Amino acid sequence: MNDVQVILKTATPGSDRRAAQRDRLIACAEAAIADEGLAALRARSLAECTGCAVGGIYNLVTDLDELILLVGQRTMADLNAQLDTVHIETPAGGKPSAEALLVGWALAYRAFAAEHRNRWRALFEFRLPPGRDLPDWFEADQMRLFVRLEQTLAAWMPKLDGPTRQLRARTLFSAVHGIVALGLEEKLVAMPPAALEAELTAFVHAYLAGLRPAPAKGRA
Amino acid sequence: MNDVQVILKTATPGSDRRAAQRDRLIACAEAAIADEGLAALRARSLAECTGCAVGGIYNLVTDLDELILLVGQRTMADLNAQLDTVHIETPAGGKPSAEALLVGWALAYRAFAAEHRNRWRALFEFRLPPGRDLPDWFEADQMRLFVRLEQTLAAWMPKLDGPTRQLRARTLFSAVHGIVALGLEEKLVAMPPAALEAELTAFVHAYLAGLRPAPAKGRA
Repeated sequence: MNDVQVILKTATPGSDRRAAQRDRLIACAEAAIADEGLAALRARSLAECTGCAVGGIYNLVTDLDELILLVGQRTMADLNAQLDTVHIETPAGGKPSAEALLVGWALAYRAFAAEHRNRWRALFEFRLPPGRDLPDWFEADQMRLFVRLEQTLAAWMPKLDGPTRQLRARTLFSAVHGIVALGLEEKLVAMPPAALEAELTAFVHAYLAGLRPAPAKGRA
Repeated sequence: MNDVQVILKTATPGSDRRAAQRDRLIACAEAAIADEGLAALRARSLAECTGCAVGGIYNLVTDLDELILLVGQRTMADLNAQLDTVHIETPAGGKPSAEALLVGWALAYRAFAAEHRNRWRALFEFRLPPGRDLPDWFEADQMRLFVRLEQTLAAWMPKLDGPTRQLRARTLFSAVHGIVALGLEEKLVAMPPAALEAELTAFVHAYLAGLRPAPAKGRA
Protein backbone atom coordinates (compact mmCIF):
# COMPACT_ATOMS: atom_id res chain seq x y z
CA MET A 1 0.00 0.00 0.00
CA ASN A 2 1.56 3.28 -1.02
CA ASP A 3 1.31 6.66 0.70
CA VAL A 4 -1.56 7.84 -1.41
CA GLN A 5 -3.65 4.80 -0.55
CA VAL A 6 -2.96 5.33 3.15
CA ILE A 7 -4.18 8.92 2.86
CA LEU A 8 -7.27 7.90 0.96
CA LYS A 9 -8.15 5.16 3.44
CA THR A 10 -7.74 7.25 6.56
CA ALA A 11 -9.42 10.42 5.26
CA THR A 12 -13.12 10.84 5.87
CA PRO A 13 -15.13 10.27 2.73
CA GLY A 14 -16.19 13.01 0.34
CA SER A 15 -14.40 16.34 0.24
CA ASP A 16 -11.29 15.22 2.20
CA ARG A 17 -10.79 12.30 -0.13
CA ARG A 18 -11.27 14.51 -3.14
CA ALA A 19 -8.83 17.12 -1.76
CA ALA A 20 -6.19 14.46 -1.19
CA GLN A 21 -6.64 13.08 -4.68
CA ARG A 22 -6.47 16.58 -6.15
CA ASP A 23 -3.20 17.24 -4.30
CA ARG A 24 -1.89 13.98 -5.67
CA LEU A 25 -2.88 14.99 -9.21
CA ILE A 26 -1.08 18.35 -8.85
CA ALA A 27 2.01 16.58 -7.48
CA CYS A 28 1.94 14.17 -10.44
CA ALA A 29 1.66 17.07 -12.91
CA GLU A 30 4.47 18.91 -11.14
CA ALA A 31 6.74 15.87 -11.36
CA ALA A 32 5.93 15.39 -15.06
CA ILE A 33 6.70 19.04 -15.83
CA ALA A 34 9.89 18.94 -13.75
CA ASP A 35 11.07 15.83 -15.60
CA GLU A 36 10.17 16.62 -19.17
CA GLY A 37 8.58 20.05 -19.41
CA LEU A 38 5.10 21.27 -20.24
CA ALA A 39 4.84 19.42 -23.54
CA ALA A 40 5.10 16.09 -21.69
CA LEU A 41 1.82 16.54 -19.82
CA ARG A 42 -0.60 13.76 -20.86
CA ALA A 43 -3.99 13.00 -19.30
CA ARG A 44 -3.41 9.24 -19.52
CA SER A 45 -0.14 9.20 -17.58
CA LEU A 46 -1.49 11.76 -15.09
CA ALA A 47 -4.46 9.48 -14.40
CA GLU A 48 -2.14 6.49 -13.96
CA CYS A 49 0.11 8.42 -11.55
CA THR A 50 -2.90 9.78 -9.61
CA GLY A 51 -4.62 6.42 -9.46
CA CYS A 52 -7.87 7.48 -11.12
CA ALA A 53 -9.58 7.06 -14.48
CA VAL A 54 -8.69 9.55 -17.22
CA GLY A 55 -12.18 11.07 -16.93
CA GLY A 56 -11.73 11.32 -13.16
CA ILE A 57 -9.12 14.05 -13.66
CA TYR A 58 -11.91 16.39 -14.70
CA ASN A 59 -13.72 15.84 -11.42
CA LEU A 60 -10.59 17.21 -9.71
CA VAL A 61 -9.70 20.14 -12.00
CA THR A 62 -11.62 21.95 -14.75
CA ASP A 63 -9.04 21.11 -17.41
CA LEU A 64 -5.29 20.68 -17.94
CA ASP A 65 -4.87 24.47 -18.21
CA GLU A 66 -6.13 24.87 -14.65
CA LEU A 67 -3.85 22.03 -13.57
CA ILE A 68 -0.83 23.78 -15.12
CA LEU A 69 -1.75 26.99 -13.27
CA LEU A 70 -2.00 25.04 -9.99
CA VAL A 71 1.51 23.69 -10.62
CA GLY A 72 2.61 27.26 -11.41
CA GLN A 73 1.17 28.38 -8.10
CA ARG A 74 3.39 25.87 -6.30
CA THR A 75 6.41 26.99 -8.34
CA MET A 76 5.77 30.61 -7.33
CA ALA A 77 5.39 29.58 -3.68
CA ASP A 78 8.71 27.70 -3.83
CA LEU A 79 10.37 30.68 -5.51
CA ASN A 80 9.03 33.03 -2.83
CA ALA A 81 10.31 30.65 -0.15
CA GLN A 82 13.76 30.59 -1.77
CA LEU A 83 13.85 34.40 -1.93
CA ASP A 84 12.86 34.46 1.77
CA THR A 85 16.02 32.55 2.64
CA VAL A 86 18.27 35.29 1.24
CA HIS A 87 20.29 36.52 4.16
CA ILE A 88 22.35 39.70 3.95
CA GLU A 89 25.15 40.16 6.49
CA THR A 90 24.98 43.59 8.08
CA PRO A 91 27.32 45.17 10.62
CA ALA A 92 25.88 45.23 14.16
CA GLY A 93 22.58 43.66 13.09
CA GLY A 94 21.45 46.70 11.07
CA LYS A 95 18.88 46.42 8.29
CA PRO A 96 20.25 45.27 4.94
CA SER A 97 20.34 47.92 2.21
CA ALA A 98 17.84 47.89 -0.63
CA GLU A 99 20.73 47.36 -3.02
CA ALA A 100 22.09 44.33 -1.15
CA LEU A 101 18.62 42.77 -0.96
CA LEU A 102 17.86 43.28 -4.65
CA VAL A 103 21.23 41.83 -5.68
CA GLY A 104 20.66 38.89 -3.31
CA TRP A 105 17.22 38.21 -4.78
CA ALA A 106 18.49 38.45 -8.38
CA LEU A 107 21.16 35.84 -7.59
CA ALA A 108 18.61 33.66 -5.75
CA TYR A 109 16.32 33.92 -8.78
CA ARG A 110 19.13 32.69 -11.03
CA ALA A 111 19.81 29.80 -8.64
CA PHE A 112 16.13 28.83 -8.49
CA ALA A 113 15.81 28.93 -12.29
CA ALA A 114 18.94 26.79 -12.70
CA GLU A 115 17.80 24.25 -10.11
CA HIS A 116 14.17 23.98 -11.23
CA ARG A 117 14.72 24.65 -14.92
CA ASN A 118 11.62 22.99 -16.36
CA ARG A 119 9.18 24.17 -13.69
CA TRP A 120 10.54 27.70 -14.01
CA ARG A 121 10.34 27.63 -17.83
CA ALA A 122 6.75 26.35 -17.61
CA LEU A 123 5.73 29.46 -15.64
CA PHE A 124 6.59 31.60 -18.66
CA GLU A 125 5.97 29.24 -21.58
CA PHE A 126 2.40 28.47 -20.63
CA ARG A 127 -0.26 30.55 -22.36
CA LEU A 128 -3.97 30.37 -21.74
CA PRO A 129 -6.13 30.19 -24.86
CA PRO A 130 -6.99 33.65 -26.29
CA GLY A 131 -9.81 35.37 -24.44
CA ARG A 132 -9.34 33.44 -21.22
CA ASP A 133 -7.99 35.46 -18.28
CA LEU A 134 -5.73 34.27 -15.49
CA PRO A 135 -7.77 33.32 -12.43
CA ASP A 136 -7.75 35.78 -9.52
CA TRP A 137 -5.94 33.36 -7.19
CA PHE A 138 -3.07 33.08 -9.67
CA GLU A 139 -2.80 36.85 -10.05
CA ALA A 140 -2.85 37.28 -6.28
CA ASP A 141 0.11 34.90 -5.92
CA GLN A 142 2.03 36.75 -8.59
CA MET A 143 1.41 39.99 -6.73
CA ARG A 144 3.01 38.51 -3.63
CA LEU A 145 6.21 38.03 -5.63
CA PHE A 146 6.26 41.71 -6.58
CA VAL A 147 5.36 43.18 -3.20
CA ARG A 148 8.87 42.57 -1.88
CA LEU A 149 10.33 44.38 -4.90
CA GLU A 150 7.94 47.32 -4.55
CA GLN A 151 8.63 47.69 -0.83
CA THR A 152 12.37 47.59 -1.39
CA LEU A 153 12.20 50.14 -4.21
CA ALA A 154 10.12 52.32 -1.89
CA ALA A 155 13.06 52.38 0.52
CA TRP A 156 15.37 53.28 -2.35
CA MET A 157 13.15 55.97 -3.88
CA PRO A 158 10.65 57.11 -1.26
CA LYS A 159 9.38 60.01 -3.35
CA LEU A 160 8.27 57.87 -6.28
CA ASP A 161 4.47 57.60 -6.50
CA GLY A 162 2.89 54.19 -5.98
CA PRO A 163 1.77 53.38 -9.53
CA THR A 164 5.17 54.31 -11.01
CA ARG A 165 6.94 52.27 -8.35
CA GLN A 166 4.72 49.33 -9.21
CA LEU A 167 5.77 49.59 -12.87
CA ARG A 168 9.45 49.97 -11.96
CA ALA A 169 9.27 46.84 -9.80
CA ARG A 170 7.87 44.84 -12.74
CA THR A 171 10.45 46.32 -15.10
CA LEU A 172 13.25 45.33 -12.73
CA PHE A 173 11.83 41.82 -12.43
CA SER A 174 11.49 41.51 -16.22
CA ALA A 175 15.03 42.75 -16.85
CA VAL A 176 16.53 40.32 -14.32
CA HIS A 177 14.36 37.57 -15.77
CA GLY A 178 15.64 38.33 -19.29
CA ILE A 179 19.28 38.25 -18.19
CA VAL A 180 18.74 34.96 -16.34
CA ALA A 181 16.67 33.41 -19.15
CA LEU A 182 19.04 34.18 -22.04
CA GLY A 183 22.08 33.50 -19.84
CA LEU A 184 20.94 30.12 -18.50
CA GLU A 185 19.62 28.92 -21.82
CA GLU A 186 22.95 29.97 -23.35
CA LYS A 187 21.04 31.70 -26.12
CA LEU A 188 23.67 34.36 -26.59
CA VAL A 189 27.07 33.90 -28.10
CA ALA A 190 29.86 34.84 -25.72
CA MET A 191 27.88 35.07 -22.49
CA PRO A 192 29.68 32.29 -20.62
CA PRO A 193 27.54 30.77 -17.84
CA ALA A 194 30.24 31.63 -15.31
CA ALA A 195 29.87 35.33 -16.10
CA LEU A 196 26.16 35.37 -15.32
CA GLU A 197 26.32 36.00 -11.57
CA ALA A 198 28.81 38.84 -11.93
CA GLU A 199 26.75 40.41 -14.74
CA LEU A 200 23.56 40.19 -12.68
CA THR A 201 25.26 41.84 -9.72
CA ALA A 202 26.75 44.62 -11.85
CA PHE A 203 23.40 45.09 -13.56
CA VAL A 204 21.38 45.58 -10.38
CA HIS A 205 23.98 48.01 -8.99
CA ALA A 206 24.04 50.08 -12.19
CA TYR A 207 20.27 50.15 -12.61
CA LEU A 208 19.63 51.18 -9.01
CA ALA A 209 22.33 53.85 -9.20
CA GLY A 210 20.68 55.19 -12.36
CA LEU A 211 17.20 55.19 -10.81
CA ARG A 212 18.50 57.49 -8.10
CA PRO A 213 21.08 59.56 -9.95
CA ALA A 214 22.41 61.62 -7.06
CA PRO A 215 22.50 59.36 -4.01
CA ALA A 216 24.90 61.57 -2.08
CA LYS A 217 22.62 64.59 -2.18
CA GLY A 218 19.29 62.99 -1.44
CA ARG A 219 16.64 60.79 -2.84
CA ALA A 220 14.43 61.31 -5.85
CA MET B 1 1.62 28.27 -63.12
CA ASN B 2 2.72 29.82 -59.84
CA ASP B 3 5.83 31.89 -59.11
CA VAL B 4 7.83 28.94 -57.86
CA GLN B 5 7.22 26.97 -61.02
CA VAL B 6 8.31 29.95 -63.11
CA ILE B 7 11.56 30.17 -61.15
CA LEU B 8 12.18 26.45 -61.47
CA LYS B 9 11.52 26.45 -65.22
CA THR B 10 13.74 29.39 -66.02
CA ALA B 11 16.65 28.49 -63.74
CA THR B 12 19.50 26.46 -65.18
CA PRO B 13 19.46 22.87 -64.00
CA GLY B 14 21.41 21.60 -61.03
CA SER B 15 22.60 23.88 -58.28
CA ASP B 16 20.51 26.92 -59.30
CA ARG B 17 17.36 24.85 -59.30
CA ARG B 18 18.27 23.38 -55.92
CA ALA B 19 19.04 26.83 -54.50
CA ALA B 20 15.67 28.15 -55.68
CA GLN B 21 13.86 25.18 -54.16
CA ARG B 22 15.78 25.60 -50.92
CA ASP B 23 14.78 29.28 -50.75
CA ARG B 24 11.20 28.24 -51.36
CA LEU B 25 11.40 25.68 -48.52
CA ILE B 26 12.78 28.31 -46.13
CA ALA B 27 10.02 30.75 -47.17
CA CYS B 28 7.39 28.04 -46.58
CA ALA B 29 8.82 27.30 -43.11
CA GLU B 30 8.94 31.01 -42.32
CA ALA B 31 5.28 31.44 -43.31
CA ALA B 32 4.25 28.42 -41.22
CA ILE B 33 6.12 29.72 -38.15
CA ALA B 34 4.72 33.24 -38.66
CA ASP B 35 1.17 31.86 -38.88
CA GLU B 36 1.13 29.29 -36.14
CA GLY B 37 4.46 29.18 -34.36
CA LEU B 38 7.25 26.62 -34.16
CA ALA B 39 5.02 23.77 -33.05
CA ALA B 40 3.10 23.95 -36.35
CA LEU B 41 6.10 22.94 -38.48
CA ARG B 42 5.31 19.64 -40.24
CA ALA B 43 7.40 17.95 -42.94
CA ARG B 44 4.31 16.95 -44.93
CA SER B 45 2.85 20.45 -45.27
CA LEU B 46 6.32 21.92 -45.89
CA ALA B 47 6.79 19.47 -48.76
CA GLU B 48 3.38 20.36 -50.16
CA CYS B 49 4.11 24.09 -49.95
CA THR B 50 7.59 23.65 -51.47
CA GLY B 51 6.34 21.36 -54.22
CA CYS B 52 8.60 18.42 -53.44
CA ALA B 53 8.28 14.97 -51.88
CA VAL B 54 8.59 14.75 -48.09
CA GLY B 55 11.94 12.99 -48.50
CA GLY B 56 13.06 15.73 -50.90
CA ILE B 57 13.20 18.19 -47.99
CA TYR B 58 16.28 16.37 -46.71
CA ASN B 59 18.09 16.97 -50.00
CA LEU B 60 17.64 20.69 -49.33
CA VAL B 61 18.42 20.89 -45.59
CA THR B 62 20.00 18.45 -43.15
CA ASP B 63 16.92 18.32 -40.93
CA LEU B 64 14.10 20.50 -39.57
CA ASP B 65 16.43 21.92 -36.90
CA GLU B 66 18.66 23.36 -39.61
CA LEU B 67 15.58 24.68 -41.38
CA ILE B 68 14.41 26.45 -38.21
CA LEU B 69 17.86 28.04 -37.83
CA LEU B 70 17.72 29.23 -41.46
CA VAL B 71 14.35 30.87 -40.71
CA GLY B 72 15.91 32.36 -37.56
CA GLN B 73 18.72 33.78 -39.70
CA ARG B 74 16.14 35.62 -41.81
CA THR B 75 14.36 36.86 -38.68
CA MET B 76 17.65 38.26 -37.35
CA ALA B 77 18.37 39.91 -40.72
CA ASP B 78 14.91 41.54 -40.69
CA LEU B 79 15.42 42.67 -37.11
CA ASN B 80 18.80 44.19 -37.99
CA ALA B 81 17.19 45.95 -40.96
CA GLN B 82 14.46 47.37 -38.71
CA LEU B 83 17.05 48.62 -36.20
CA ASP B 84 18.93 50.23 -39.11
CA THR B 85 15.89 52.37 -39.88
CA VAL B 86 15.95 54.02 -36.45
CA HIS B 87 16.51 57.68 -37.11
CA ILE B 88 17.39 60.07 -34.31
CA GLU B 89 16.81 63.78 -34.92
CA THR B 90 19.86 65.82 -33.97
CA PRO B 91 20.34 69.59 -34.03
CA ALA B 92 22.44 70.80 -36.97
CA GLY B 93 23.04 67.27 -38.27
CA GLY B 94 25.23 66.23 -35.32
CA LYS B 95 25.74 62.60 -34.35
CA PRO B 96 22.96 61.10 -32.22
CA SER B 97 23.89 60.38 -28.61
CA ALA B 98 24.50 56.82 -27.42
CA GLU B 99 21.52 57.21 -25.11
CA ALA B 100 19.14 58.29 -27.88
CA LEU B 101 20.30 55.43 -30.11
CA LEU B 102 19.90 52.77 -27.42
CA VAL B 103 16.44 54.03 -26.48
CA GLY B 104 15.49 54.09 -30.18
CA TRP B 105 16.70 50.52 -30.69
CA ALA B 106 14.89 49.27 -27.58
CA LEU B 107 11.62 50.75 -28.88
CA ALA B 108 12.28 49.36 -32.37
CA TYR B 109 12.92 45.95 -30.82
CA ARG B 110 9.54 46.11 -29.06
CA ALA B 111 7.85 47.10 -32.33
CA PHE B 112 9.54 44.27 -34.24
CA ALA B 113 8.55 41.72 -31.59
CA ALA B 114 4.95 42.94 -31.59
CA GLU B 115 4.71 42.88 -35.39
CA HIS B 116 6.45 39.55 -35.95
CA ARG B 117 5.34 37.87 -32.72
CA ASN B 118 5.65 34.21 -33.73
CA ARG B 119 8.90 34.53 -35.69
CA TRP B 120 10.43 36.51 -32.84
CA ARG B 121 9.24 33.97 -30.24
CA ALA B 122 10.66 31.14 -32.35
CA LEU B 123 14.14 32.70 -32.16
CA PHE B 124 14.12 32.15 -28.40
CA GLU B 125 11.89 29.10 -27.99
CA PHE B 126 13.90 26.90 -30.30
CA ARG B 127 16.47 24.65 -28.65
CA LEU B 128 18.89 22.37 -30.42
CA PRO B 129 19.08 18.85 -29.00
CA PRO B 130 21.60 18.51 -26.14
CA GLY B 131 25.18 18.25 -27.31
CA ARG B 132 24.57 19.95 -30.65
CA ASP B 133 26.12 23.39 -31.06
CA LEU B 134 24.78 26.32 -33.05
CA PRO B 135 26.39 26.46 -36.50
CA ASP B 136 29.07 29.11 -37.03
CA TRP B 137 26.98 31.03 -39.58
CA PHE B 138 24.17 31.41 -37.05
CA GLU B 139 26.54 32.65 -34.36
CA ALA B 140 28.11 35.11 -36.79
CA ASP B 141 24.69 36.61 -37.56
CA GLN B 142 23.92 36.93 -33.86
CA MET B 143 27.22 38.75 -33.37
CA ARG B 144 26.17 41.32 -36.00
CA LEU B 145 23.19 42.16 -33.81
CA PHE B 146 25.45 42.85 -30.83
CA VAL B 147 28.15 44.81 -32.61
CA ARG B 148 25.95 47.92 -32.78
CA LEU B 149 25.32 47.68 -29.02
CA GLU B 150 29.01 47.21 -28.23
CA GLN B 151 30.07 50.12 -30.41
CA THR B 152 27.48 52.39 -28.85
CA LEU B 153 28.45 51.38 -25.32
CA ALA B 154 32.06 52.08 -26.30
CA ALA B 155 31.07 55.69 -27.01
CA TRP B 156 29.29 55.83 -23.65
CA MET B 157 32.08 54.22 -21.62
CA PRO B 158 35.32 54.50 -23.61
CA LYS B 159 37.48 53.27 -20.73
CA LEU B 160 35.71 49.94 -20.34
CA ASP B 161 37.83 47.02 -21.59
CA GLY B 162 36.57 45.10 -24.61
CA PRO B 163 35.55 41.81 -22.95
CA THR B 164 33.58 43.61 -20.20
CA ARG B 165 31.90 45.82 -22.77
CA GLN B 166 30.93 42.70 -24.72
CA LEU B 167 29.26 41.26 -21.63
CA ARG B 168 27.51 44.55 -20.81
CA ALA B 169 26.12 44.72 -24.37
CA ARG B 170 24.62 41.23 -23.98
CA THR B 171 23.28 42.07 -20.53
CA LEU B 172 21.59 45.18 -21.90
CA PHE B 173 20.12 43.19 -24.76
CA SER B 174 18.86 40.49 -22.38
CA ALA B 175 17.32 43.02 -20.00
CA VAL B 176 15.47 44.83 -22.81
CA HIS B 177 14.42 41.46 -24.21
CA GLY B 178 13.01 40.43 -20.82
CA ILE B 179 11.03 43.66 -20.45
CA VAL B 180 9.64 43.31 -23.99
CA ALA B 181 8.93 39.59 -23.63
CA LEU B 182 7.04 39.72 -20.33
CA GLY B 183 5.38 42.99 -21.30
CA LEU B 184 4.14 41.89 -24.74
CA GLU B 185 3.03 38.49 -23.55
CA GLU B 186 1.19 40.23 -20.71
CA LYS B 187 2.71 37.77 -18.29
CA LEU B 188 2.78 40.22 -15.45
CA VAL B 189 -0.17 41.51 -13.55
CA ALA B 190 -0.47 45.29 -13.72
CA MET B 191 1.97 46.00 -16.54
CA PRO B 192 -0.51 47.48 -19.01
CA PRO B 193 0.67 47.18 -22.63
CA ALA B 194 0.41 50.95 -23.02
CA ALA B 195 3.02 51.44 -20.27
CA LEU B 196 5.63 49.32 -22.02
CA GLU B 197 7.20 51.99 -24.26
CA ALA B 198 7.52 54.48 -21.41
CA GLU B 199 8.99 51.82 -19.11
CA LEU B 200 11.54 50.76 -21.76
CA THR B 201 12.59 54.36 -22.28
CA ALA B 202 12.92 55.02 -18.54
CA PHE B 203 14.79 51.75 -18.14
CA VAL B 204 17.46 52.46 -20.76
CA HIS B 205 18.00 55.98 -19.39
CA ALA B 206 18.37 54.74 -15.81
CA TYR B 207 20.65 51.84 -16.70
CA LEU B 208 22.96 53.99 -18.83
CA ALA B 209 23.09 56.66 -16.15
CA GLY B 210 24.04 54.00 -13.62
CA LEU B 211 26.73 52.52 -15.84
CA ARG B 212 28.43 55.89 -15.90
CA PRO B 213 27.69 57.26 -12.46
CA ALA B 214 29.25 60.71 -12.79
CA PRO B 215 28.59 61.89 -16.35
CA ALA B 216 29.26 65.53 -15.55
CA LYS B 217 32.79 64.89 -14.35
CA GLY B 218 34.01 62.46 -16.98
CA ARG B 219 33.65 58.95 -18.20
CA ALA B 220 34.44 55.72 -16.47
